[in-house]
Amino acid sequence: MQLAMIGLGRMGANMVRRLLKAGHECVVFDLDPANVSALVDVGAVGATSMEDAVAKVGKTGAVWLMLPAAVVGPTVEKLADMMQAGGIIIDGGNSFYHDDIDRGEALAARGINYLDVGTSGGVWGLDRGYCLMIGGPVEAVKRLDAVFAALAPGLDRGAVPPVDAQSTAYLGYLHCGPTGAGHYTKMVHNGIEYGVMAAYAEGINILKAANEGKGTREVDAETTPLRHPKYYQFDIDLSEVAEVWRHGSVIGSWLLDLTAQALKADEGLTGFGGRVSDSGEGRWTLQAAIETGVPAPVLSSALFGRFSSRGESEFADRLLSAMRLAFGGHLEKPESDE
Amino acid sequence: MQLAMIGLGRMGANMVRRLLKAGHECVVFDLDPANVSALVDVGAVGATSMEDAVAKVGKTGAVWLMLPAAVVGPTVEKLADMMQAGGIIIDGGNSFYHDDIDRGEALAARGINYLDVGTSGGVWGLDRGYCLMIGGPVEAVKRLDAVFAALAPGLDRGAVPPVDAQSTAYLGYLHCGPTGAGHYTKMVHNGIEYGVMAAYAEGINILKAANEGKGTREVDAETTPLRHPKYYQFDIDLSEVAEVWRHGSVIGSWLLDLTAQALKADEGLTGFGGRVSDSGEGRWTLQAAIETGVPAPVLSSALFGRFSSRGESEFADRLLSAMRLAFGGHLEKPESDE
Amino acid sequence: MQLAMIGLGRMGANMVRRLLKAGHECVVFDLDPANVSALVDVGAVGATSMEDAVAKVGKTGAVWLMLPAAVVGPTVEKLADMMQAGGIIIDGGNSFYHDDIDRGEALAARGINYLDVGTSGGVWGLDRGYCLMIGGPVEAVKRLDAVFAALAPGLDRGAVPPVDAQSTAYLGYLHCGPTGAGHYTKMVHNGIEYGVMAAYAEGINILKAANEGKGTREVDAETTPLRHPKYYQFDIDLSEVAEVWRHGSVIGSWLLDLTAQALKADEGLTGFGGRVSDSGEGRWTLQAAIETGVPAPVLSSALFGRFSSRGESEFADRLLSAMRLAFGGHLEKPESDE
Amino acid sequence: MQLAMIGLGRMGANMVRRLLKAGHECVVFDLDPANVSALVDVGAVGATSMEDAVAKVGKTGAVWLMLPAAVVGPTVEKLADMMQAGGIIIDGGNSFYHDDIDRGEALAARGINYLDVGTSGGVWGLDRGYCLMIGGPVEAVKRLDAVFAALAPGLDRGAVPPVDAQSTAYLGYLHCGPTGAGHYTKMVHNGIEYGVMAAYAEGINILKAANEGKGTREVDAETTPLRHPKYYQFDIDLSEVAEVWRHGSVIGSWLLDLTAQALKADEGLTGFGGRVSDSGEGRWTLQAAIETGVPAPVLSSALFGRFSSRGESEFADRLLSAMRLAFGGHLEKPESDE
Repeated sequence: MQLAMIGLGRMGANMVRRLLKAGHECVVFDLDPANVSALVDVGAVGATSMEDAVAKVGKTGAVWLMLPAAVVGPTVEKLADMMQAGGIIIDGGNSFYHDDIDRGEALAARGINYLDVGTSGGVWGLDRGYCLMIGGPVEAVKRLDAVFAALAPGLDRGAVPPVDAQSTAYLGYLHCGPTGAGHYTKMVHNGIEYGVMAAYAEGINILKAANEGKGTREVDAETTPLRHPKYYQFDIDLSEVAEVWRHGSVIGSWLLDLTAQALKADEGLTGFGGRVSDSGEGRWTLQAAIETGVPAPVLSSALFGRFSSRGESEFADRLLSAMRLAFGGHLEKPESDE
Repeated sequence: MQLAMIGLGRMGANMVRRLLKAGHECVVFDLDPANVSALVDVGAVGATSMEDAVAKVGKTGAVWLMLPAAVVGPTVEKLADMMQAGGIIIDGGNSFYHDDIDRGEALAARGINYLDVGTSGGVWGLDRGYCLMIGGPVEAVKRLDAVFAALAPGLDRGAVPPVDAQSTAYLGYLHCGPTGAGHYTKMVHNGIEYGVMAAYAEGINILKAANEGKGTREVDAETTPLRHPKYYQFDIDLSEVAEVWRHGSVIGSWLLDLTAQALKADEGLTGFGGRVSDSGEGRWTLQAAIETGVPAPVLSSALFGRFSSRGESEFADRLLSAMRLAFGGHLEKPESDE
Repeated sequence: MQLAMIGLGRMGANMVRRLLKAGHECVVFDLDPANVSALVDVGAVGATSMEDAVAKVGKTGAVWLMLPAAVVGPTVEKLADMMQAGGIIIDGGNSFYHDDIDRGEALAARGINYLDVGTSGGVWGLDRGYCLMIGGPVEAVKRLDAVFAALAPGLDRGAVPPVDAQSTAYLGYLHCGPTGAGHYTKMVHNGIEYGVMAAYAEGINILKAANEGKGTREVDAETTPLRHPKYYQFDIDLSEVAEVWRHGSVIGSWLLDLTAQALKADEGLTGFGGRVSDSGEGRWTLQAAIETGVPAPVLSSALFGRFSSRGESEFADRLLSAMRLAFGGHLEKPESDE
Repeated sequence: MQLAMIGLGRMGANMVRRLLKAGHECVVFDLDPANVSALVDVGAVGATSMEDAVAKVGKTGAVWLMLPAAVVGPTVEKLADMMQAGGIIIDGGNSFYHDDIDRGEALAARGINYLDVGTSGGVWGLDRGYCLMIGGPVEAVKRLDAVFAALAPGLDRGAVPPVDAQSTAYLGYLHCGPTGAGHYTKMVHNGIEYGVMAAYAEGINILKAANEGKGTREVDAETTPLRHPKYYQFDIDLSEVAEVWRHGSVIGSWLLDLTAQALKADEGLTGFGGRVSDSGEGRWTLQAAIETGVPAPVLSSALFGRFSSRGESEFADRLLSAMRLAFGGHLEKPESDE
């Protein structure tokens, strides 16, 4: 079937390629004409503006947005003015689900269908397929079934038996509920992702410290000496350990696969500074947990670790040093001393 | 080659079966004769005592222990008295690596080789193979290479390319370093496991709360009303979501596979009370982190969550209620009010 | 000066008593006439309705609300209809500061002043005075200076020298900024309070466990034995320790005073079940931290501990047990076994 | 009575001064003769060596050590060789309580009494008195009662009524139990201290972020925009808020007093870099919690925050960035972009 894709960045462009491969027809638009022509070269129908894209896909057609969260709102409003009752607007980015609910209500009043589709798969989705978490009215979801099926991985990755033939979950896409349910599910997915990532990162950092007993520490009142240096004499090959864990262990996962790969490429990870971004879903997951009274100590620790990695604890840390000086006369140790 | 296995519980018995299938000869002993005869039925050589097992495998042979951590120490001492220089004792259980280092030193003085082998794979290892993390002297590790290769998954699960032909990691077993390095690596593995498990569990608990806005809450000074109930109206099918995440998403993993399976079998998880055990490695991981000054907020949150699940926060919680009464006159709300 | 107080619960009634003692005139109203007459007996002017209260204090007078957060909004709207430009409405409860900002804007358009006053002091405020964190337009704050001064502790508790004579902070009240700044500051105050309380509660729980080595534990694969029971043989007198810490130690505080008192009254805290309420500010503090990207691992741990104390981790914990069964065949241990 | 003090650093010297003021006779020794003569000037009896100190205080006298934890062990051993049965050695520093138990056992076999005395009060103890947590045999504790009473604050700070005349806790010193109980109690005290400090520091950091909405953020896929900048427009005066909280609020404490003082001196805390030391007790508190199965999420978050402040999360953070690049093509943002 036919679909218009607006926003041809990393994700949007690959999704179009996957749809084209599956035989779907895609109208494509992006503010950068180079992104459009790159896809026209592989069979997409280029558009010169949003208006043009709507003209080509039809006022009751389906328009899929892959845009930064901050510009989705105005874009949806503009699109809605160009389309007619019966049309479908899909937000496949990482919008906050509250916005979905508000937008869905506003569009429903005009007869336009709004779907929120959480999309996971990253740069690997082109080949592996995307995991799609879908929210919105059931009829519109059904109308796009072939599109979802083409974007999703499909049958080639093992489902939990017994496979429920009534369900699409084992194919990699799922209608999670009414408007907002797709992004809510994707939000929690990313919250979990932060936690899983941090679990590996912390553990591997502890492995790295297994040779701590080989170092030397000064003896002074400010430094805790390692009590038993003999127990910290291991030089663990982090890359090899990450690889072995991929084979038969309980903690095998795709994130571990990528971790092993990254460590194999550069065990010192020298190409990274350690300023870890977070792009919204982790924060919203915690806010949902807090609003509904659900404990989430692991997910919050993972999120706060990212904040700290960007220096956001610094003032608090300086205050701790100020208190230590005030009550105990403890001077901060300079970096070179430790 | 030949090996004696002492301890034929869940793990030990399956490991013997896997070794027998691969053509190895196994002498087997357990305090429960039924466990011995079950394996004799499938081709193992039964022993009637530890002495008998050593007699059958030879005083310079290899004896593998799969025993609860608490009884490993005395067993190793007894075994060492029965064996001769050149023999190998393998502890495949979950011993604390400090004990390995101490035992290894004591045995080395007598010429007996001691290997610590962290073994992951659980009840699935029989079919999938076990992930083995090995510590100890290199010659003894090499001598048992065929045994490790048989227990490990082998080539059938994809390695991170490019495969390093010099390494066994991509086959599922790895010599991690000198005595203790195997259990140190396994310890951290389990610490990570706790963190990964908790990330899924917290996230799915937040998904479950997505219908919180459908409930009704009293208006009083002790209860925080949900500000926007309209944003918490989703009845998410947890089992379906766990399944869809397995296909193409960033958080796919073996633990997620099992989670999907468990939720499919009983979405309410009614067969469980929520008292979560922890069996040592998670604790030791944290202690290693603390001794070496490595932050591990996610792994510690996961561990403390298990403690709390068994009621270990209760006194602290009562103290909080006592403080609230003291400063604000706040009476505890009875369970039925919430 | 004259003030009307609406809401004569625990806090409101005591604040009126403190104002009356300082020579202020108070009009009082509450839905429960008994609360009104109790204050009339000590010199307040009773009102039979909100309208009556406004009539008595004047349409350009000052009306102070001490109400549950959930009913503040409608009450402010009703009041605003009864009052005139120049009047002052003060919300002294624990409203969410977003609501203050919204209400302040709406009222400002009608010329009515809105002040948000975070009020700390609990049941002790009558005698000790209340700590007041004030947000709103500066003229209205100045007009009520004598009221704030009477409610606050005043000079009898030592200020940090050198005292800034231009500041009221050392008297116990502070104009923190424009509308919302009072409740924002109070919100963070309570977030800190949760953290401080939890620090004491956790520590005292660890003291309590100092005799853990006297117990007996089974030896099985699911239980981690205490490695060195000889180091856990102390029966610490928790009440005595809390008392001694109050004298000269770094952790002396008012919350510790109350803790010592509670433990002295009943060291077993048998009157409490350990279901710890949270009343909004702790949640909002975390949400502000998350929105602004500020790490708050201690404050969030304290908040989540309260959620868990009310059973909100249970489903997550059952899921952990389900995973453990799935990968390792671990059966949950019944409560009596531990 | 007479006492020898070994170790005349920050703490030891002030304790001697307080004892001298109370009329006790003190023999003093330090490796730095200048420290000795400074105290001789105010009435102490100087010693030229440990042997000399023992000679002057007597072989059955009392020798109090205020030394870095790492040198306490060898010093105790040397001292024990110089002293006789009936003598008392007091470790007033921050030793690990396991060492106390081991030392106490060894010394008891020779008839020498060993007391472990956790000492809180910092640089303020000279004037305010020290809070003393004492472990060891009851007779030796009683023999030093006058010394403890002189060091402790005494009656001038209010006890929790009703005062138990049988207890010394309300005077600021307490016999907590047998050898090790003093340092165990002090250890937990410091663990709590870390948690309380972090609660204030996090909260004040959140206050500081209250003007976040005034900034400008780029719109891109990596940055979460602040949803409602209008709610983050406050410029809170941190120093004034810390001061006002000291008067009548629930979170008043000595640490808050010091915080207010530090912020008043320099609200930007420009003299500190934010590398926060930890000196053992916080770590040991967590290890005790973990060994005994007691949840301590707040105390551990505080400890890990200190580790992170010294850069110990960096490798883990780089690994997170590496994973993000691997699955999503996310490049780390340079510092200047944020």
